[in-house]
Amino acid sequence: MGKLLAQIHTPQDLHKLKSSELEELATEMRAEIIETVSKTGGHLAASLGTVELAIALHLTFESPHDKLIWDVGHQAYPHKLLTGRAEKFRTLRQYGGIAGFPRCFESPHDIVDAGHSSTSISVSLGLAQARDLCQGDWSVAAIIGDGSLTGGMAFEALNHAGQLKTDLLVVLNDNEMSISHNVGALSQYLTRLRTDPTLTRAREDLDLLLKRLPGGPTMARLADRLKGSIKYLVMAGMLFEEMGFTYLGPVDGHNIPTLRRALADARKRKGPVLLHVVTKKGKGYLPAQQEPDRFHGVGPFEIKTGIPKHTSVTPSYTDVFSQTLVALAQKNPKICAITAAMPGGTGLTSFREKFPTRFFDVGIAEQHAVTFAAGLAHGGQRPVVAIYSTFLQRAYDQIVHDLCLPKLPVVLAIDRAGLVGEDGETHHGAFDISYLRHLPNITVMSPANQSELRMMLKSALVWNRGPVAIRYPRGTAEGEADLDLENIPTIEWGKARSLRTGSHGAIFAIGSGVSLALEAARQLEAAGLSPLVVDARFVKPLDSRLLSWARQAGFVVTVEENVAAGGFGSAVLELFAQNDLQLPVRSIALPDRFVEHGPTLLLREECGLSVEKIKAVFLELEQKK
Amino acid sequence: MGKLLAQIHTPQDLHKLKSSELEELATEMRAEIIETVSKTGGHLAASLGTVELAIALHLTFESPHDKLIWDVGHQAYPHKLLTGRAEKFRTLRQYGGIAGFPRCFESPHDIVDAGHSSTSISVSLGLAQARDLCQGDWSVAAIIGDGSLTGGMAFEALNHAGQLKTDLLVVLNDNEMSISHNVGALSQYLTRLRTDPTLTRAREDLDLLLKRLPGGPTMARLADRLKGSIKYLVMAGMLFEEMGFTYLGPVDGHNIPTLRRALADARKRKGPVLLHVVTKKGKGYLPAQQEPDRFHGVGPFEIKTGIPKHTSVTPSYTDVFSQTLVALAQKNPKICAITAAMPGGTGLTSFREKFPTRFFDVGIAEQHAVTFAAGLAHGGQRPVVAIYSTFLQRAYDQIVHDLCLPKLPVVLAIDRAGLVGEDGETHHGAFDISYLRHLPNITVMSPANQSELRMMLKSALVWNRGPVAIRYPRGTAEGEADLDLENIPTIEWGKARSLRTGSHGAIFAIGSGVSLALEAARQLEAAGLSPLVVDARFVKPLDSRLLSWARQAGFVVTVEENVAAGGFGSAVLELFAQNDLQLPVRSIALPDRFVEHGPTLLLREECGLSVEKIKAVFLELEQKK
Repeated sequence: MGKLLAQIHTPQDLHKLKSSELEELATEMRAEIIETVSKTGGHLAASLGTVELAIALHLTFESPHDKLIWDVGHQAYPHKLLTGRAEKFRTLRQYGGIAGFPRCFESPHDIVDAGHSSTSISVSLGLAQARDLCQGDWSVAAIIGDGSLTGGMAFEALNHAGQLKTDLLVVLNDNEMSISHNVGALSQYLTRLRTDPTLTRAREDLDLLLKRLPGGPTMARLADRLKGSIKYLVMAGMLFEEMGFTYLGPVDGHNIPTLRRALADARKRKGPVLLHVVTKKGKGYLPAQQEPDRFHGVGPFEIKTGIPKHTSVTPSYTDVFSQTLVALAQKNPKICAITAAMPGGTGLTSFREKFPTRFFDVGIAEQHAVTFAAGLAHGGQRPVVAIYSTFLQRAYDQIVHDLCLPKLPVVLAIDRAGLVGEDGETHHGAFDISYLRHLPNITVMSPANQSELRMMLKSALVWNRGPVAIRYPRGTAEGEADLDLENIPTIEWGKARSLRTGSHGAIFAIGSGVSLALEAARQLEAAGLSPLVVDARFVKPLDSRLLSWARQAGFVVTVEENVAAGGFGSAVLELFAQNDLQLPVRSIALPDRFVEHGPTLLLREECGLSVEKIKAVFLELEQKK
Repeated sequence: MGKLLAQIHTPQDLHKLKSSELEELATEMRAEIIETVSKTGGHLAASLGTVELAIALHLTFESPHDKLIWDVGHQAYPHKLLTGRAEKFRTLRQYGGIAGFPRCFESPHDIVDAGHSSTSISVSLGLAQARDLCQGDWSVAAIIGDGSLTGGMAFEALNHAGQLKTDLLVVLNDNEMSISHNVGALSQYLTRLRTDPTLTRAREDLDLLLKRLPGGPTMARLADRLKGSIKYLVMAGMLFEEMGFTYLGPVDGHNIPTLRRALADARKRKGPVLLHVVTKKGKGYLPAQQEPDRFHGVGPFEIKTGIPKHTSVTPSYTDVFSQTLVALAQKNPKICAITAAMPGGTGLTSFREKFPTRFFDVGIAEQHAVTFAAGLAHGGQRPVVAIYSTFLQRAYDQIVHDLCLPKLPVVLAIDRAGLVGEDGETHHGAFDISYLRHLPNITVMSPANQSELRMMLKSALVWNRGPVAIRYPRGTAEGEADLDLENIPTIEWGKARSLRTGSHGAIFAIGSGVSLALEAARQLEAAGLSPLVVDARFVKPLDSRLLSWARQAGFVVTVEENVAAGGFGSAVLELFAQNDLQLPVRSIALPDRFVEHGPTLLLREECGLSVEKIKAVFLELEQKK
């Protein structure tokens, strides 16, 4: 750790440094972030862009009395370094170490948990109103990226803030991208604000011009009218001014004195203020600066070159999805693909290259993504919406109202379903089976291996009786891509697959649970038992043959990487109850709590999603029988 | 029905009328709407405001080849009258009759179902892109109210449309209110657009002024710069222009020739166009014009006076919630209340009057409502968010990420949980138990009567270990308000209540199911049986004493007004399975389909939520035993 950074135990310690030392501190912080993330992986580029901003904010505001709310929060590493966590920073994203996102139970300086986008203005406005109600004197600043600003709830909050007129600072951290390149009219607007020199001077110019007008009644009348509406005149930030904010900026987000002046000015003003700060994603580390998209979230890498340390040769489910979708889209020109600002993460980059007109990046806007897909389907297209399980939570209502109700053939490709590892609590896809399977007209399935994902995707894209959700986990895909991409078989709709016959107890598994189940069965067989193993494939509709398999086996263990409540195991229980089948059933699933961050395998063990646990539960039921 | 309206069987028939007859047609349509809604109840005020707009749209566009997408859709009665449904219009909202919202399975002219707000631009943009992809030639027009525009997903869609630049018309139906008075900066902005005469002329003025400038190098330079940025100059609609739209208007939404000219102009333009139309909610019916909030959604009323025909003397759950919250807030100054544009419907009007600074109407913005409440709670307040079950679906992710994860003490008062009757498919609160109970750290409860709602609300407002959801149905509350508002007892947390001991079979019910269960038990007792009846009160945590009651009873029937999948019955099955309790369990719950509109009691019967059904299932299990 650098010698200046080592002196910063609380944000107050910043005031002990000379102004001239702050830049050196910034350099040390960058080195610490690069060094750490090169080993732990993490969100590098965004955090490199906010080093000076974090310093200036902590010099201007007194955290935690004043509330700094970092949106999404993968931009918050510098904030963590300045708030007593520099020493622990090397444990970033490690099991038991500090989290990759602000986490309210980790530090009083992390006011809220922030792993999902666009929440900061809402929270900040609530904090500002709470202050007004109890005559508090804290300041509130939301720091939100230009990408997060495209999320609808940020707009809802701006709209409300513009009306309430309470004192609130929104720092727009404009790094010209969300995760991939930014999209949308708003992004184009921000670019104009940054790049059009005319704009920044136009208000003064117009003022000057009005002063120099010649006489005459017509001119006087015109000038009067214009002066009357002077606040609507040419100026940077009109969009935010129209929303009721005072717009300040844009200012250089890497110049600490400039930032301090701007923040001090902003803090003094009454009512809602938006300070537009321009930063560079990846600032100070050339590979990240050149490829900010690749360095948004990275695994361990070599610092000198930026080259990843481990490159997996076995494909991930994302890879399999990616290849298969491209192959299917080559044959069917109706297939469209939609991402909410994650073309890389969801595997749609190659689709975008091959079919640019059929590819849509809607920005961080999952609600719109789903209903836009509904529109495409109404218009005869076959849209595939690829979103991570945890982010698709944003579009729950749109799935109900705009897909299930009209029975539209939209495919939801749900990546990162289950535990995702180091991104932790806010990113695990723990709930999707539970939040989807109770909806009418939907099909929910989950592949146990590469072949199944291919078959499921192909079959989903010909199904025309309602939306289809396919959930698959992060990381290496089971099995081999043994299927010819040109001739992918379809899957038998609503049918499970018996993988192992047996006379003594059954294991019904889905998704990542299937390989665990098979291995447990192998080991149990070695111990003289004979478990039946079924890959359920479908959560909804659930194959009624599970009834006869269960009757035959006498007892059932279900395995899934989703919470138990309302999950696959719960669906099995419902099926049994409806059919008056009473026998012992135990569910192995994620626990009823938010699971922390750490290596996925370790987390699975800890949650009981393991071969050992399956065996133990199976044996327990076996002995009771 | 009027004689002109009787001639309109398809929108094409409009062209057969003389221009001079169109106003007469509008009058007939209004009479038909008023006459019908005075008998059936319905959404009166909004639809009275769109009569001329619907006529002009159908004269300009060729529905269903061209796609008219009505947002929310309670503004779509005139559209229904013009699209072959005039004869059936008297069956509005009646069982088996036409729906109160656009419904894609009802008519080819209803492209999408629309009972939830702010979806129209997303759908329309999808339809426009589908057209471009398949070289179609249809036009697409979204008709969205100024209230719906405050929903975040409308902004997400505007942002995407502004970037895609495809041909798309957004008709902003600006009636100066959403349901209650409109809120937010956007609303204030629209008011300026409507009322500031300076604005509408300013662009021309400035142009003129620039032309008349005197010579001289400084002036020339200034003028040049300004001309260079002329598109940023003062003009109405700047906010929309900044988003990439061509802004047209505002135009009088009750003048058919004006509307036709404006729509024809808008249709000719390339790219996304926003046409600002100003209408009057309740237009043409004085009582509705004077009290548009009360006439947003109404029951049957006397046409002459506007007075409701039936006024219930027994209080609804909404009334009980309303009174209780005010009583509790009188004692606890930390209690705040939040609504998403429904102060009347959710019963917060009196709270607003008594505690204006602690009341927040955030607009149609459920996502922001929940996260804003999170901010209030972080700031030490005790917020209560009152939202209908079906609309709270919009905030599912915010409940997970911003309430459950940080264990914040926010109370969700979930009104309209269960079947809501005439509003139908999009409005039934069929899923909330299923979409909430799988979340960590949340408590989910449901009162069976007035007293329980009071106790639950009081207890929830002192609970400090996480969010609490209280779901209650539309309509008359069971029981009597037998509790002193000053001394409401608290409820035993996580405990069910045995209502009736018995030796032979059990009925475990929650919410509205409890009174059905008690009546069924009474009748079964008359037949010589002795069912045990439990009011579960809590879905989560579920009282483990249900295990011993079930063991004692031998079999269990569960009753709830929520879908079976993932619901209360499913939670009971999970509890039993975890504890190796095997016995017959049957769930009586809402079916796995969207339930149509009609009288709630009839719908409940149809869904099997009836005393008869409970008895039948109970007897079936009894006989099998």
